[in-house]
Amino acid sequence: MNKIENKNIGAYIWVVPDAYLPPIGDEKLPGHEATCILNLNDKPANVEFTFYFEDREPLKSAKVKIGAQRTLHLRLDQSEALLNVNLERSIPFSIKVESDVKIIVQHSRMDTRQPNLAYMSTIGYPVKE
Amino acid sequence: MNKIENKNIGAYIWVVPDAYLPPIGDEKLPGHEATCILNLNDKPANVEFTFYFEDREPLKSAKVKIGAQRTLHLRLDQSEALLNVNLERSIPFSIKVESDVKIIVQHSRMDTRQPNLAYMSTIGYPVKE
Amino acid sequence: MNKIENKNIGAYIWVVPDAYLPPIGDEKLPGHEATCILNLNDKPANVEFTFYFEDREPLKSAKVKIGAQRTLHLRLDQSEALLNVNLERSIPFSIKVESDVKIIVQHSRMDTRQPNLAYMSTIGYPVKE
Amino acid sequence: MNKIENKNIGAYIWVVPDAYLPPIGDEKLPGHEATCILNLNDKPANVEFTFYFEDREPLKSAKVKIGAQRTLHLRLDQSEALLNVNLERSIPFSIKVESDVKIIVQHSRMDTRQPNLAYMSTIGYPVKE
Repeated sequence: MNKIENKNIGAYIWVVPDAYLPPIGDEKLPGHEATCILNLNDKPANVEFTFYFEDREPLKSAKVKIGAQRTLHLRLDQSEALLNVNLERSIPFSIKVESDVKIIVQHSRMDTRQPNLAYMSTIGYPVKE
Repeated sequence: MNKIENKNIGAYIWVVPDAYLPPIGDEKLPGHEATCILNLNDKPANVEFTFYFEDREPLKSAKVKIGAQRTLHLRLDQSEALLNVNLERSIPFSIKVESDVKIIVQHSRMDTRQPNLAYMSTIGYPVKE
Repeated sequence: MNKIENKNIGAYIWVVPDAYLPPIGDEKLPGHEATCILNLNDKPANVEFTFYFEDREPLKSAKVKIGAQRTLHLRLDQSEALLNVNLERSIPFSIKVESDVKIIVQHSRMDTRQPNLAYMSTIGYPVKE
Repeated sequence: MNKIENKNIGAYIWVVPDAYLPPIGDEKLPGHEATCILNLNDKPANVEFTFYFEDREPLKSAKVKIGAQRTLHLRLDQSEALLNVNLERSIPFSIKVESDVKIIVQHSRMDTRQPNLAYMSTIGYPVKE
């Protein structure tokens, strides 16, 4: 309905300060976080995560490809398989997401410890060019 | 109290990366998501959704009209009736909302699986012209 | 530590699309929403709400004064006493907040129906001048 | 993948209007809020909090240092030890965070009163220069 092209929607870099994998809680519905990434472009997005900690050096992930016009809800409790980074539970961290094309990022947590589930979610902080 | 006109408030395009219809949970209070849209204009907003998935082509909805100076909290668990798109539960997706006038969008989830309800919500990502 | 003056922080107009007063739930901890407003100025903020509905005309509130360098967490389940507007429970609505000085707005819901409490919260949508 | 330098990511001042330390709830998982701050710079961030209340003067915290390329999830229920400010539970307040370098801020609450935990979270409001 208007002329902004899909390839110009979003940002190349996004930041999520509050990341934390809660204890596993309910094994049938394990606590986790998911970084949800939408790629509106007509070509794949090559995406890299950097994880920041309170008391040690940042870790860079392997690259993840997200297809054209596709979303990915990346489960951080599966970071070893998906990102080649071992993220422990119960450790506070932060996330920087970088892409070679513009993307849009939202980050959410599910916690099932008590055991009724709790959620939190926020659009990431987009870095302006 | 100041001079920004209502018709200039908001954006034509909004994005929500983290969308997901949870299992139905409590039948008296079924889990759902709602895309909440405010139209501050003096004329109706004609709004269209595009849904993006992890492994298939995007789907475009039928158009929805939101009256002048009205809000709509559109229940996505009723997408077949309201949007002419069949959205399955337990499938990750993302949302792009487009309008012919400026609108303001917030997206929220209620999950009643365990069965105590959990919420998450965020203002959508507004696309700057 | 830097030179942005407090009076230039925030916006005159804020929008919250997803507002809803849930059923009362637990009477000792009744479900509610709160619009949380920070006034960083050296003078009071005169603030007015407009409430938008799905099927009737918007309602304007009485004005609320927020002192210099003060916050107000305004409980919408007390809107009749605080804002001279009767907001019913279980009705979807949206909110526009206007002020004669710049303010910062966040809006949150507590739901205690099931009866374990659920929260949602988001920074409002700030309207750029 | 692109040329925005880490030192230019974020803002010097952030605001969180809805802050509240809930009653302690579950002693093994006490209710709390955390202000989560990421410092992407190659040097430490010196950070100061100002707390705003409904009916008394603002309080300034001691300064907190966050290392280069480090995150801090600062627990506000430990504000006396960490910030030299006594924040009571069950009192509404707001937060301004100021830093001598750019940072990114997200603020989250965990409430365990009922006693199943509830979360809320939002990226703070970044103050543009």
